[in-house]
Amino acid sequence: MTTVIKNGTVVTADLTYKADVSVDGGKIAEIGPDLKGDKELDATGCYVMPGGIDPHTHLEMPFMGTYSSDDFESGTRAGLAGGTTMIVDFALPNQGESLLDALKRWDNKSARANCDYSFHMAVTWWGEQVFEDMKTVVQERGINTFKHFLAYKGALMVNDDELFASFSRLAELGATPMVHAENGDVVAELSARLLAEGNTGPEAHAYSRPSQVEGEATNRAIMIADMAGVPLYVVHVSCEEAHEAIRRARMQGKRVWGEPLIQHLTLDESEYFNKDWDHAARRVMSPPFRNKKHQDSLWAGLASGSLSVVATDHCAFTTEQKRFGAGDFTRIPNGTGGLEDRMPMLWTHGVGTGRLTMNEFVAVTSTNIAKILNCYPTKGAILVGADADIVVWDPEKEKTIAAGDQQSAIDYNVFEGHHVKGLPRFTLTRGYVAIHDGEIRTREGYGKFVAREPNAPVNKALSQWKALTAPRPVIRRGIPATGV
Amino acid sequence: MTTVIKNGTVVTADLTYKADVSVDGGKIAEIGPDLKGDKELDATGCYVMPGGIDPHTHLEMPFMGTYSSDDFESGTRAGLAGGTTMIVDFALPNQGESLLDALKRWDNKSARANCDYSFHMAVTWWGEQVFEDMKTVVQERGINTFKHFLAYKGALMVNDDELFASFSRLAELGATPMVHAENGDVVAELSARLLAEGNTGPEAHAYSRPSQVEGEATNRAIMIADMAGVPLYVVHVSCEEAHEAIRRARMQGKRVWGEPLIQHLTLDESEYFNKDWDHAARRVMSPPFRNKKHQDSLWAGLASGSLSVVATDHCAFTTEQKRFGAGDFTRIPNGTGGLEDRMPMLWTHGVGTGRLTMNEFVAVTSTNIAKILNCYPTKGAILVGADADIVVWDPEKEKTIAAGDQQSAIDYNVFEGHHVKGLPRFTLTRGYVAIHDGEIRTREGYGKFVAREPNAPVNKALSQWKALTAPRPVIRRGIPATGV
Amino acid sequence: MTTVIKNGTVVTADLTYKADVSVDGGKIAEIGPDLKGDKELDATGCYVMPGGIDPHTHLEMPFMGTYSSDDFESGTRAGLAGGTTMIVDFALPNQGESLLDALKRWDNKSARANCDYSFHMAVTWWGEQVFEDMKTVVQERGINTFKHFLAYKGALMVNDDELFASFSRLAELGATPMVHAENGDVVAELSARLLAEGNTGPEAHAYSRPSQVEGEATNRAIMIADMAGVPLYVVHVSCEEAHEAIRRARMQGKRVWGEPLIQHLTLDESEYFNKDWDHAARRVMSPPFRNKKHQDSLWAGLASGSLSVVATDHCAFTTEQKRFGAGDFTRIPNGTGGLEDRMPMLWTHGVGTGRLTMNEFVAVTSTNIAKILNCYPTKGAILVGADADIVVWDPEKEKTIAAGDQQSAIDYNVFEGHHVKGLPRFTLTRGYVAIHDGEIRTREGYGKFVAREPNAPVNKALSQWKALTAPRPVIRRGIPATGV
Amino acid sequence: MTTVIKNGTVVTADLTYKADVSVDGGKIAEIGPDLKGDKELDATGCYVMPGGIDPHTHLEMPFMGTYSSDDFESGTRAGLAGGTTMIVDFALPNQGESLLDALKRWDNKSARANCDYSFHMAVTWWGEQVFEDMKTVVQERGINTFKHFLAYKGALMVNDDELFASFSRLAELGATPMVHAENGDVVAELSARLLAEGNTGPEAHAYSRPSQVEGEATNRAIMIADMAGVPLYVVHVSCEEAHEAIRRARMQGKRVWGEPLIQHLTLDESEYFNKDWDHAARRVMSPPFRNKKHQDSLWAGLASGSLSVVATDHCAFTTEQKRFGAGDFTRIPNGTGGLEDRMPMLWTHGVGTGRLTMNEFVAVTSTNIAKILNCYPTKGAILVGADADIVVWDPEKEKTIAAGDQQSAIDYNVFEGHHVKGLPRFTLTRGYVAIHDGEIRTREGYGKFVAREPNAPVNKALSQWKALTAPRPVIRRGIPATGV
Repeated sequence: MTTVIKNGTVVTADLTYKADVSVDGGKIAEIGPDLKGDKELDATGCYVMPGGIDPHTHLEMPFMGTYSSDDFESGTRAGLAGGTTMIVDFALPNQGESLLDALKRWDNKSARANCDYSFHMAVTWWGEQVFEDMKTVVQERGINTFKHFLAYKGALMVNDDELFASFSRLAELGATPMVHAENGDVVAELSARLLAEGNTGPEAHAYSRPSQVEGEATNRAIMIADMAGVPLYVVHVSCEEAHEAIRRARMQGKRVWGEPLIQHLTLDESEYFNKDWDHAARRVMSPPFRNKKHQDSLWAGLASGSLSVVATDHCAFTTEQKRFGAGDFTRIPNGTGGLEDRMPMLWTHGVGTGRLTMNEFVAVTSTNIAKILNCYPTKGAILVGADADIVVWDPEKEKTIAAGDQQSAIDYNVFEGHHVKGLPRFTLTRGYVAIHDGEIRTREGYGKFVAREPNAPVNKALSQWKALTAPRPVIRRGIPATGV
Repeated sequence: MTTVIKNGTVVTADLTYKADVSVDGGKIAEIGPDLKGDKELDATGCYVMPGGIDPHTHLEMPFMGTYSSDDFESGTRAGLAGGTTMIVDFALPNQGESLLDALKRWDNKSARANCDYSFHMAVTWWGEQVFEDMKTVVQERGINTFKHFLAYKGALMVNDDELFASFSRLAELGATPMVHAENGDVVAELSARLLAEGNTGPEAHAYSRPSQVEGEATNRAIMIADMAGVPLYVVHVSCEEAHEAIRRARMQGKRVWGEPLIQHLTLDESEYFNKDWDHAARRVMSPPFRNKKHQDSLWAGLASGSLSVVATDHCAFTTEQKRFGAGDFTRIPNGTGGLEDRMPMLWTHGVGTGRLTMNEFVAVTSTNIAKILNCYPTKGAILVGADADIVVWDPEKEKTIAAGDQQSAIDYNVFEGHHVKGLPRFTLTRGYVAIHDGEIRTREGYGKFVAREPNAPVNKALSQWKALTAPRPVIRRGIPATGV
Repeated sequence: MTTVIKNGTVVTADLTYKADVSVDGGKIAEIGPDLKGDKELDATGCYVMPGGIDPHTHLEMPFMGTYSSDDFESGTRAGLAGGTTMIVDFALPNQGESLLDALKRWDNKSARANCDYSFHMAVTWWGEQVFEDMKTVVQERGINTFKHFLAYKGALMVNDDELFASFSRLAELGATPMVHAENGDVVAELSARLLAEGNTGPEAHAYSRPSQVEGEATNRAIMIADMAGVPLYVVHVSCEEAHEAIRRARMQGKRVWGEPLIQHLTLDESEYFNKDWDHAARRVMSPPFRNKKHQDSLWAGLASGSLSVVATDHCAFTTEQKRFGAGDFTRIPNGTGGLEDRMPMLWTHGVGTGRLTMNEFVAVTSTNIAKILNCYPTKGAILVGADADIVVWDPEKEKTIAAGDQQSAIDYNVFEGHHVKGLPRFTLTRGYVAIHDGEIRTREGYGKFVAREPNAPVNKALSQWKALTAPRPVIRRGIPATGV
Repeated sequence: MTTVIKNGTVVTADLTYKADVSVDGGKIAEIGPDLKGDKELDATGCYVMPGGIDPHTHLEMPFMGTYSSDDFESGTRAGLAGGTTMIVDFALPNQGESLLDALKRWDNKSARANCDYSFHMAVTWWGEQVFEDMKTVVQERGINTFKHFLAYKGALMVNDDELFASFSRLAELGATPMVHAENGDVVAELSARLLAEGNTGPEAHAYSRPSQVEGEATNRAIMIADMAGVPLYVVHVSCEEAHEAIRRARMQGKRVWGEPLIQHLTLDESEYFNKDWDHAARRVMSPPFRNKKHQDSLWAGLASGSLSVVATDHCAFTTEQKRFGAGDFTRIPNGTGGLEDRMPMLWTHGVGTGRLTMNEFVAVTSTNIAKILNCYPTKGAILVGADADIVVWDPEKEKTIAAGDQQSAIDYNVFEGHHVKGLPRFTLTRGYVAIHDGEIRTREGYGKFVAREPNAPVNKALSQWKALTAPRPVIRRGIPATGV
């Protein structure tokens, strides 16, 4: 039973060319002219692209006794509706919990996924067990990316010595650290000060996390990764300061990737000054939205390659959940949606304006992260043998984003009212047509875990260079007897 | 009659995987396991990579009544011996000469080429005829890249207003300007001053072209390209100053590519201080070799993507020709060889040290420039349907570079004595095995011209963005009568 | 006949302290407690500061058969009213005119000045006579600063080779070049294109001179000065790009100073989008006003020392003169006023906000430029023996700027409606109280020319370093015979 | 009883002029031509400059049960011999010790000083008592500078939250934080790793503290100071990374000063590779010496003003004490001498080459720090009424530095064998001629403590700006009831 995508134009990170694409057994079977199949999808006028990969989601994330409101079912459904065919969620161990136990919990939740997924392991505490578990996680569980929080003091935050220890361990294992880069000490102090001064509203969330604290933490994580001899992936780069630190590192040959979010690329801090508390609180996320200067920096980074991936940090809380922080901004749950809107928003504001080429669009929504995660070309490619995770993109299809029409479980959308041009006609997840010209045909539980090998080429090359340039002792005839 | 490359590992800019590659009719026919063919090439232990593309050569270039000593025959033979399967040479019109006439001369010379080639058109003067010819060159001759010299005052140099006019014309035509970026006015003055002060030796060539003059001209060309709304390709980026200008442009979203040469990556200015005049003079090229600080900058640029391509500027003069400048460094013909050594030297010092991954090696020696030139994936790819320009790379093969063993027509080699590890076992040019395990089987005249379309994706995207952000007049009710 | 300034607080670039200041014979005679004199000025609550120096004016400047409307009388009267006690005007030779003849014309005009003044010599063309005149100008006329226009193609502009020749000559003479840094070729082309597209209004003036063209020219001038071995003063730095070039030069140890104007610090490009043509045209100057990003850059430069001086480029044209460019923005005379407003505007927006200390205010309005011009401490100082050019500054005095109240001869003020707090109570020019608590008592012709010596300490130090690091020939046993 | 310095040239940070200087009662009484006095010092051919201020010494510093070997007597004697007339030492509380108790210990030690001195207070731990003591230290003890160690984990190091708390307290008090900026966590880990790998020699000290860890910590401290709204002084800036962080801060208008040491300006890392263990160990200090790239950066910073002060970090240990770390580099006491050599070395390599003017020499050795410390013009000035801390500098006097000739108590000199040209003829400390043409006439206990007021102009201006731009709450009609 084969499916053929007919009459479209294949667009990859590399190439744009007319071809049909046939799918068999969940994989791409053939690419070429005039293909035939049991079932045909008409891609006339459309671009046939690798399905999007969103490497940054928090589905059904535990929070204050409840959970973020999109789970693996609704979350992946939203993703597919927007052309995203794989997500990577963060498995978060509790303090003292084994990494493997945390993974079990995530295995359970993810059983309902409509598309393929993988996990990043979070390092939320440090100890001998974590050190040991890491090996198992990498070598047996197929996870090669580990996230560290420099923010959320007293909860998820790890200190510099733990960071160095963890990064060093990852260097040994051929895995790659990720960081949430905000200085948690300073955020905590600024938050306390703001509350004390009567700055309790959602806008104070933005005040408490200025771009400087993100820039600093990014710079620090880069230094520590360099000392540990490991590449680094910086999640949700929202500002020029953090981007500058990344550029500065890259210009010295360091291996650092930055991930801006679609929200930071298209929304700005004025949202927090909205007179409607709910409006502002719904946009509370960390880092907060910034201004046009920062947006321009992020867009330029995508075009130039100093930033590599566009993600969402999808972590959806309802208005009711957001109101938990009424009167105290520090209690507003952090997070916004985006899974359904990432690709259309980026296409509209990127490809639609000429800031990005179509190939760059594919690179930053899919191919680059597949390479970084070391699951390319199983994912992120239109190549024979690759998984048939495909979006058939109609550049003429338009809509105005509205919460009422969305897949996400929450009652609002941070992009409400934004007009987008460029939307999926079909989305295929391992060959299955989950989105069919506006119709949602997702299958709960269809998605599978994507295991990923360590020792990607960049990790190996970096280790080689570090070994070559490692400190060597000076050979001396002798040393004096110890003094004093 | 098919040829199959057996048992190798395919390495592209994207991917590394085990596969056989079969070739038929000069193109790649199949990629996969266990392929059969009429003829087999054993690639056991080898990497099967896209053949190198050297976008910067000057073969049989007219000079002071003579010519640079490698012509299209010996030059492409040298290239093939080193794994390079396509070169792009610069067609240089004389003052007042039609671009088309110059191309005819280049057509004649290139008829002897052993591998495929293309031309960049040089804009060595400006006028109505050049403006008109450009359209023909782009639309009928398949040339979309035009080089401008900011140096060589009184000869090739064009001024800023000519540059702006030419760049603007190229923006209209969807073509891409290139620049040789050194401030020709300043070089001329410094040269005159040095000669007057008795600085007549080859080292004065380096003194006369400090990195500052390159940085300045690069910065200037970038601004002019930005104003004209066209991407820019900067040839032979040799120093941090020029690289900094390129990085600064890219971090603002400008579309600028930089091309370091293998010479600048691996040789330094101390060569000019050699007590042997011949040794020093043989290394005279523009820009001159720099120091380690600059080399580190270039290597980091290749890893980070702020620099895109490694070329040679191959322009070989014999020692006898070099001696033309005995007693007056300004008369030493500018140029060095490198076609045979680019790939082994870059592999040794890049991949061999961990500074570059194998995939990055392919990107900067072949794939990136194929995309920039808009001839990808005909060239620069291991894909079914691509031209079978392939190098089978043996990472264990070693040699010490020596002029006595080289293909180039000249009597020395600037890399003399350098040990390289990583060399071609086979080089295929459109399917023909020109280099067979050390044996040279090139065929004079086998090479064909590669025509290249304008309006590459980056050109189109940039034009779109420039149109979107173009100046708009303020609408006023009226304007006052003219005063005074 | 002595005058004593009583009960004030002396504020210099270095120091803040309570003291009386007595003046005798046009010079500061004594500084200390409880001084007595024939006449007393009450400075209670005031700061006693060195009078402002505005190093950038164009008084009675020839233009299209007429002149800029403030001459040395009204211009210096406006300056004194705002606390400025010395101005430096640009002597502009016609094409082919001797520098000395141009100076004669400026001598005539300046005879009416109400306060002391000096001249910068403009290098508007290049030739043997200019080369020779320069020596006389420096050694006999007391002028050590020479301005070069990189803009105004076809009129004032000089090319790179002329720039290098002129800078080199100045290096020999111990004098300092200044540049108006905009790329004149590109401005000319952009202007022509804008007019052709129907962009004829004043806003097109801004479009025709984007910050990029200023950044480029600044960078180029810096390189040429470095090659010539001479310090450089960049006038009217209006944007981050130019400031960045200056910072980059300074961080390499180059001797470069930047001068922002009070207009660029406090007004922005939105002025050009005003629906009233006259409003917009009155603000036409080169470089044009920029946006907040650029303003922030300039303010930070003043605080950090990467920018050194705040000037005005005072060149006042009446509305009637401005209307000369109705229907063609290129014919709008370039220039705005500012002499009366520089000090109050800078105090209000600098000292009044905490962006600058009072000492930094004195530094950037007076002391720094006195040092750069090599007339410190005759000017720019509150020291015994210094000229008694003093402003007694009342930090509580306020006004709203209005053309109706101004000294300038023109019919509008670009700062119209701006509220300032901090104004002169008294202004003394060489001891004479020209401004007395709101009353204008200027004396036409009172001002004298300030001669300035070459070979300032920075010039000498730079020459020493350049000599130390100059190219040296390699000593070789012999060189081969000339080849070919 | 007056002393007159006759026939010299006064050189200050501002000015160079011929004048005699008379001294009475420890203060400068008169400056002018032809002064008379009871005693005359012949300054023919000499420069009369403000005595040097070394703001960074550790005299008789407790260490592993012993003390650094220069105490306030020998240390200040060495300083005077080299033209330094004031030092500032760091009062280091033990863990849990009151700041005031620590000051008492320092009061005792400093009683033997030969010249004036002040203290910086170190914040080596954090708690309520420190918070309270700070007020007393500032308001009653005349200390407005507080040092924080980001290195020396487990000993002096403070964490980010302590840093923020301390900086915030200093902002309230109008005092200024200083930082020793190296990431202590990373240094500790690298040290442990190096020892484990058998890297035990002095060169491993340098390996354990690469420039990256200094750059990171500098960047972090700057961010925290910015958030706390206080200026920052970074001690011993040794590298481009730290300097870059400072420049980047300054270019954003932040108030940050950097202090390179004379050692880092003139000595490099090759010292640690010396085959003689003693030679290498004697040069062990933190940060370690770097390479030429870093030196060039520091020199350029002094010329451009991005770095403000040259100090020594004088902390002298004998060879016997150094040998405490034989076999384990982490036990080598950190510190080198320099008090006697700072001024001659800086003059020789700065003024003697043209890298600095004489005025800049005075600025960076004396005047700038006096302003930063808020004791200008009592110190750091040649002004009537200033303390007569004066060095009469003979630019023709030369010597080769040798331990045998030095005042310091230790048995070697890190500048051994360096030739200097430019040395004191006389050094006056509050009018007393302590160094008289090569003769040492210092008086033990002559020196007095210099009290310094808080709320210097820069502190006040910054507080004003921070208040003006502080976060403001959004006024909303109401907020929803708390959710969940």
